[in-house]
Amino acid sequence: MNSIGTLFRLSIFGESHGKCVGIVVDGVPAGIPLTESDLEKDLSRRKSGAKGTTPRQEADIPRIMSGTFNDHTTGAPIMILFENTNTRSRDYSFLLETPRPGHADFVAHKKFGGFEDYRGGGHFSGRLTLGIVAAGVIAKKMIHPIEVKSSLIEAGGSTNIDEAVEKAIAEQDSIGGIVETIATNMPVGLGEPFFGNIKAIIAHYIFSIPAIKGIEFGSGFAAARMRGSEHNDKFIDINGKTATNFAGGINGGISNGNDLIFRVAVKPTSSIHATQHTMNMKTGTMTDLNVEGRHDTCIALRVPVVVEAATAIALADLMLQEQRVKRVFK
Amino acid sequence: MNSIGTLFRLSIFGESHGKCVGIVVDGVPAGIPLTESDLEKDLSRRKSGAKGTTPRQEADIPRIMSGTFNDHTTGAPIMILFENTNTRSRDYSFLLETPRPGHADFVAHKKFGGFEDYRGGGHFSGRLTLGIVAAGVIAKKMIHPIEVKSSLIEAGGSTNIDEAVEKAIAEQDSIGGIVETIATNMPVGLGEPFFGNIKAIIAHYIFSIPAIKGIEFGSGFAAARMRGSEHNDKFIDINGKTATNFAGGINGGISNGNDLIFRVAVKPTSSIHATQHTMNMKTGTMTDLNVEGRHDTCIALRVPVVVEAATAIALADLMLQEQRVKRVFK
Amino acid sequence: MNSIGTLFRLSIFGESHGKCVGIVVDGVPAGIPLTESDLEKDLSRRKSGAKGTTPRQEADIPRIMSGTFNDHTTGAPIMILFENTNTRSRDYSFLLETPRPGHADFVAHKKFGGFEDYRGGGHFSGRLTLGIVAAGVIAKKMIHPIEVKSSLIEAGGSTNIDEAVEKAIAEQDSIGGIVETIATNMPVGLGEPFFGNIKAIIAHYIFSIPAIKGIEFGSGFAAARMRGSEHNDKFIDINGKTATNFAGGINGGISNGNDLIFRVAVKPTSSIHATQHTMNMKTGTMTDLNVEGRHDTCIALRVPVVVEAATAIALADLMLQEQRVKRVFK
Amino acid sequence: MNSIGTLFRLSIFGESHGKCVGIVVDGVPAGIPLTESDLEKDLSRRKSGAKGTTPRQEADIPRIMSGTFNDHTTGAPIMILFENTNTRSRDYSFLLETPRPGHADFVAHKKFGGFEDYRGGGHFSGRLTLGIVAAGVIAKKMIHPIEVKSSLIEAGGSTNIDEAVEKAIAEQDSIGGIVETIATNMPVGLGEPFFGNIKAIIAHYIFSIPAIKGIEFGSGFAAARMRGSEHNDKFIDINGKTATNFAGGINGGISNGNDLIFRVAVKPTSSIHATQHTMNMKTGTMTDLNVEGRHDTCIALRVPVVVEAATAIALADLMLQEQRVKRVFK
Repeated sequence: MNSIGTLFRLSIFGESHGKCVGIVVDGVPAGIPLTESDLEKDLSRRKSGAKGTTPRQEADIPRIMSGTFNDHTTGAPIMILFENTNTRSRDYSFLLETPRPGHADFVAHKKFGGFEDYRGGGHFSGRLTLGIVAAGVIAKKMIHPIEVKSSLIEAGGSTNIDEAVEKAIAEQDSIGGIVETIATNMPVGLGEPFFGNIKAIIAHYIFSIPAIKGIEFGSGFAAARMRGSEHNDKFIDINGKTATNFAGGINGGISNGNDLIFRVAVKPTSSIHATQHTMNMKTGTMTDLNVEGRHDTCIALRVPVVVEAATAIALADLMLQEQRVKRVFK
Repeated sequence: MNSIGTLFRLSIFGESHGKCVGIVVDGVPAGIPLTESDLEKDLSRRKSGAKGTTPRQEADIPRIMSGTFNDHTTGAPIMILFENTNTRSRDYSFLLETPRPGHADFVAHKKFGGFEDYRGGGHFSGRLTLGIVAAGVIAKKMIHPIEVKSSLIEAGGSTNIDEAVEKAIAEQDSIGGIVETIATNMPVGLGEPFFGNIKAIIAHYIFSIPAIKGIEFGSGFAAARMRGSEHNDKFIDINGKTATNFAGGINGGISNGNDLIFRVAVKPTSSIHATQHTMNMKTGTMTDLNVEGRHDTCIALRVPVVVEAATAIALADLMLQEQRVKRVFK
Repeated sequence: MNSIGTLFRLSIFGESHGKCVGIVVDGVPAGIPLTESDLEKDLSRRKSGAKGTTPRQEADIPRIMSGTFNDHTTGAPIMILFENTNTRSRDYSFLLETPRPGHADFVAHKKFGGFEDYRGGGHFSGRLTLGIVAAGVIAKKMIHPIEVKSSLIEAGGSTNIDEAVEKAIAEQDSIGGIVETIATNMPVGLGEPFFGNIKAIIAHYIFSIPAIKGIEFGSGFAAARMRGSEHNDKFIDINGKTATNFAGGINGGISNGNDLIFRVAVKPTSSIHATQHTMNMKTGTMTDLNVEGRHDTCIALRVPVVVEAATAIALADLMLQEQRVKRVFK
Repeated sequence: MNSIGTLFRLSIFGESHGKCVGIVVDGVPAGIPLTESDLEKDLSRRKSGAKGTTPRQEADIPRIMSGTFNDHTTGAPIMILFENTNTRSRDYSFLLETPRPGHADFVAHKKFGGFEDYRGGGHFSGRLTLGIVAAGVIAKKMIHPIEVKSSLIEAGGSTNIDEAVEKAIAEQDSIGGIVETIATNMPVGLGEPFFGNIKAIIAHYIFSIPAIKGIEFGSGFAAARMRGSEHNDKFIDINGKTATNFAGGINGGISNGNDLIFRVAVKPTSSIHATQHTMNMKTGTMTDLNVEGRHDTCIALRVPVVVEAATAIALADLMLQEQRVKRVFK
């Protein structure tokens, strides 16, 4: 479904080439300062236009339609709307017959029986992450003093990211990348036992972002090749600080007060300029497909702020649920 | 929290050294043949006793306490109970002061204020996965004709797993591993848009299993180093079959009919025989810790059936929600 | 919170005097014909303007902002927006000090710490039911062939409703009423065991409508005065049709195929023209309060279509969950 | 489904004549004193044996199987089990053909296709309320200083309840009743906006109790016959205390600090000694039915403690969610 959350709840909607995309954010405490301009910084980090990103430039102007009054949150749900203004009125109906490899066209068609809005990916478009970024700004205000920072640490297999992008542009191809997230000032105790543990919750949000292929916490896949004697992080003080952080700040699914660290893999953009082979779902024959349009060479360039937002959202929900708060009621 | 699911719901309970562990499985359709002996095969795959696993041998006898009648499911919730019989009455209270590195002792103590059942990991114990395995057996019956198969493909960095385990035993250390899961006979269309997408849902369940450090679907982290022109899986027939399967059977968060493939990283068991340094939470001083007890050298040996179960559970819930079923109501 | 539903999910937002009210409707199957004009009939039934209703006349023009394409639902969430156009720019800030008796002003102030949007009831306003009515239109299309019909059967204690309203207008007072709902063509089997039973689910939605004081199914409160020998409905055919319908179409929390029947009590509008006593929350003194504004003499006149919508919504969610559908997976 | 709750979650299971009934209670803060003997008082109030209740006397011995340690809650889920000991091994299979009027037999058969456990009502049995009562004891400890008190104020239409019950016994018939609940020491602010409002939440839990036909808050159905000028409760002090309490302690779906008051209608027990007419679902003919067994003449006698528990459970969940608690995070 398109909603998620226990006490901090999101409900997302919209299509790439429809009227709008947007989000309803529920569970925000009253009294948090919030204006549309607060959203700008993170939204601009997600924006296209830089080298390696699509030339489609949406204004991406957020409109806070409910839930604030006198520039503060009211405790009522906050609806944030982004109207689509720069959609090209091109005919996308060929997608009904010839799905693009690597895209959701085929599965959308099978699942929604041809009624799906196929234009520009429709509801599956990365454009829906605008709402995630906006909700993330609110979440970041709620999780203070935790600071979340995501950054692209590798693209196309290289840590020289500019170079990798330029090479891919020259080759008219696309490349993936790896985004690392570090949350500092973490309290001990975030995460609920078992199904509500912090890894499960964060992974759930992260995989809701299009183009994510994997996630690993702390030592991650490298842990599979380590020994317990080296992997166990040694405590070095009474607050639980450890000498190493293979745990990524998590034990037993609960934050341990050290920095929360995880990395995600972003696939190369599926939209490329090359001619590709596909099938014609109507005729049953194989055919060539050239998809014109405005593409990201490296969507990973725009992913960090989205991952950062998703992380803050997950943490905000977990903070609202945290057990110590419940102690009041004993 | 300790419950999860939309139409197929689990509620898990129990402690390693308490009276029992168990699970309530709700949303199971009526009329599925189910007896306690159906659970045996998978439970025995999870069992300890083989080389590299802990010598603590629980009988692990499942008792179906509700939800079946005349050896079939009734549509009412199924409660499955495992009584703990082989708990050692040893004193674990030292854990209240000196938490084990790499374990949940410290976070449990901070989160639950010293009221946690600290014996043998308490509610954080891997023993709770007994319920997951039992629920998985039921889920597997529900997802027919899908077949899920998980296997350990690497331990301690080696594909010769026996050798890696023996070496670790000799060194009195522990090792991690990588478990690969393949689900065949997948229908097109499983997964709901956005937050209910199949990657997010599966990852949520998988990270609820203790000791998991990472998950990657299809090409996974390797995708970050690939180009779109090679990563896009070419369609080779009208049913959506593709020549390669970098997508891992998923596009846009929806199953595409190809095999579902993912890998998870399992960390080396935190319990080791070596002397470790820790802190004394009461006195504030650093101290040595020797934890006797019965440990797994390579917990990854016992993880595949748990991952398999968690996958089947995720798929069962998604199948019950699948949109095509809803078409009936139009 | 402001969202609800298992497979058919609503997320509601907006304020009486803010920019808009609206709703996100998720879980709607693809392929249902839907345009804005489909919403008009029910929205106009909710409208004010008739005798006994407030003279504030909003255009109440629904804008379907997402989830439809070529005049059919796509399977993606449907966001419906109603912009507020006829809000009076009057100063309502006196409500921050002197809450109106019978209104939410006092509790909103205490709960949201003075950050609440107090204008015209803010988020607590009956105006939010616009979204419920719109979602109800969609739900009605999903529950075919069930027909839901709600009507006002009593106002101010009289079945001559016109007369009762005129009398109340003359006296510058407000009156309550009773709304009866009958759903015909009910299938057997709607409702899930225990917490998902049809009475609990319907009551949950109904009490989400402002001004509802009670609900009773079938014989309702009269059942407390009946004997089992008269209350047990006699079966008269093989399909479960009964001679009487004291059960209101429900046994064991599951629909039995007879008409679903329930009644709700609507309180008299709290807004009245008379001078009322209240306290000043700031000064701690008691004071008089005259609230000008445009009021409904009998809000119960506008409630039936809202109750009808809420019922259809509850039934739509239950139909999507119905066990027989799940049989497919055995 | 058989689970409910946001932060305080119940998962219920069991059958009247199966091995057991029970409940999993999740979300209980750590550190609350809890032993099996704490449950006795309320369980004995629910017990049968008194005049007007069934002679089936179960021991109803609760076993706390998880979630406590050293007689305190640990923060992990609490599973409470009641084994069935006094089930009669009589043949109930006639219910597969001839459903009892007023019971769930018919709908269970249609919904679960004959796989339902039909013995003694199976999963639909009032015996499942044992778990509710046990969870209620825990909830009552969590909601301190709120006190919830439910009592039977009318049976068979009379306030002389003893007399009414004796008369019904003499006539071998059953009678219904009305249960009133009053919660004192209520804080202002419980209940979340719209779908999470306190009336909706309480009603949801109350209608999960078998045999409930209606619920009304404060003035309830009488409000439909009142005028706004009399119905609006006058504030008499700065804390929101009102002279009257027609609101039942609730405005805008949020508790206002006055006593929470509601009444529920309980139907006459469906099981009676008289010969009744029913159909034979197999042969399609109408037939007579005599159901022997041990029945309650007035089930309403045993309902108050269940309603009290359900109310405490609803309040516990709402208290854990209360907005003021969230303020910490701003």
